Amino acid sequence: NLPSIEDLRAQIDSINDDLIRLISRRAQLAAEIGHIKTLEGRPHHYDPAREERQLKYIEEVNPGPFTAAALKSIFKEIFRASLDLEEANDKKQLLV
Amino acid sequence: NLPSIEDLRAQIDSINDDLIRLISRRAQLAAEIGHIKTLEGRPHHYDPAREERQLKYIEEVNPGPFTAAALKSIFKEIFRASLDLEEANDKKQLLV
Repeated sequence: NLPSIEDLRAQIDSINDDLIRLISRRAQLAAEIGHIKTLEGRPHHYDPAREERQLKYIEEVNPGPFTAAALKSIFKEIFRASLDLEEANDKKQLLV
Repeated sequence: NLPSIEDLRAQIDSINDDLIRLISRRAQLAAEIGHIKTLEGRPHHYDPAREERQLKYIEEVNPGPFTAAALKSIFKEIFRASLDLEEANDKKQLLV
């Protein structure tokens, strides 16, 4: 017997909760790195080599069913949001 | 004392592993829903009302530090990838 769409959606909703928690925790960690870089006088947060290493790893371990390109596009959106956050935090520190 | 950038990156790498696992599991569940819809003769997988409900929830529970807009942009990328996957699966079933 097939599970119901309702059951599957409940499982997705539960995963969404985990994703919100993990993505937000990851954002906190990225912001901490940004703060350290700022304290060290390194105002440029964009680190293409670090992003590239993560994307290469994601491609290597991708279990599917998403294509590597699809999975990487999701992580690229996370990277972009993190960079925006770090740059916004920098501006705030300059205003203090 | 501040944690080192290296330590923070190790924590991020560990979260990346969890995200890869959860995003892939979520993709599987979405593909199952797509399969059921196809079996039921509902070829259109895009469900804007369901997406809107999830985005509204994400905005309500967003713990930060990402803005709601940033967090939602990440989930929109997940929705887009899921829809692409379901449509690709449909094409495969038609070819069988």
